[in-house]
Amino acid sequence: MHSPAFILWFTGLSGAGKSTIAAELARELTRRGLDFEVLDGDVVRENLSKGLGFGKADRDINVRRIGWVAGTLAKHGCIAIGAAISPYRAVRDEIRAQYPRFVEVHLKVPVEVCEARDVKGLYKKARAGELTGFTGVDDPYEEPLHPEVVCETHQETVAQSAAKILHACERLGYLSPGASPVADGASGAAR
Amino acid sequence: MHSPAFILWFTGLSGAGKSTIAAELARELTRRGLDFEVLDGDVVRENLSKGLGFGKADRDINVRRIGWVAGTLAKHGCIAIGAAISPYRAVRDEIRAQYPRFVEVHLKVPVEVCEARDVKGLYKKARAGELTGFTGVDDPYEEPLHPEVVCETHQETVAQSAAKILHACERLGYLSPGASPVADGASGAAR
Repeated sequence: MHSPAFILWFTGLSGAGKSTIAAELARELTRRGLDFEVLDGDVVRENLSKGLGFGKADRDINVRRIGWVAGTLAKHGCIAIGAAISPYRAVRDEIRAQYPRFVEVHLKVPVEVCEARDVKGLYKKARAGELTGFTGVDDPYEEPLHPEVVCETHQETVAQSAAKILHACERLGYLSPGASPVADGASGAAR
Repeated sequence: MHSPAFILWFTGLSGAGKSTIAAELARELTRRGLDFEVLDGDVVRENLSKGLGFGKADRDINVRRIGWVAGTLAKHGCIAIGAAISPYRAVRDEIRAQYPRFVEVHLKVPVEVCEARDVKGLYKKARAGELTGFTGVDDPYEEPLHPEVVCETHQETVAQSAAKILHACERLGYLSPGASPVADGASGAAR
């Protein structure tokens, strides 16, 4: 049996750096010998939510499913990293309520910066009207009110963002510096 | 990091004993100090597949989702027990192909026996035409051709069925008798 781990929940616009920072964290967690799984929004859609659209109801369902898988993995000692836009506050808070070992990481980057990056070419399509319901263009993004971590990835390096996140997990008692996750309740696991 | 675990995949008619035997196995795995998760068909439907129906396409999607979650859990060292009717052979074999550490357990019980048990009252509803597409009544059940274990739960006790399954896992090298799961490839993990 393993000690329960926790959920690292990234939220932010397309292009805010979710996948990049998740990959950087993955390297550091691997170095520390910790078990983790990145639940990438696109991969989860493919495996659990094919057929769902991008309206609010379908997005909420998809985010809930990521939350359920993340919570199940965390229960079994695997650090679950959710990396999906997850634009709506209420459903993120719903997952937090269900799984209290929840670290919300807001990748806070102005939409103009994300649009200038446009890694996947999606903003261009959204502006051209080829995509509708695109978060930040014609669909809302609701910022978290009390995220555990805020990363302004346009003003900090990837390494700095990752270090901030790890530090927050350590401060919350979910990670020991350079060691394995701390067991539930062992050291000030409150937010 | 954990050694990968494996998938225990139960397949059989409603009332064949999937939940009962999963519960018995859970007791024994707990006693051995092993980490496991039962992915009950109904629970997974609620969390990952709400809105899907019981036609072949939707059933296959649901079973694929259980397979994906089971495979992800097993990858992280958690024994994943899938307990859903999973009536179609092709999709079960698809999951086996994706996750070779796969132990298929056929709960082989005549439909008349399952119907006489009718734990959830579903056969009655199906016969009355209140439920359609019910496996064993007006929807097919395709038996596995080469399951690792066959449990005829109408001719053996729950304890006997559970012992058979554990023995198969040990024989395959996935479980050490009374100890923790054997690491991938350590001892004849071939079928």
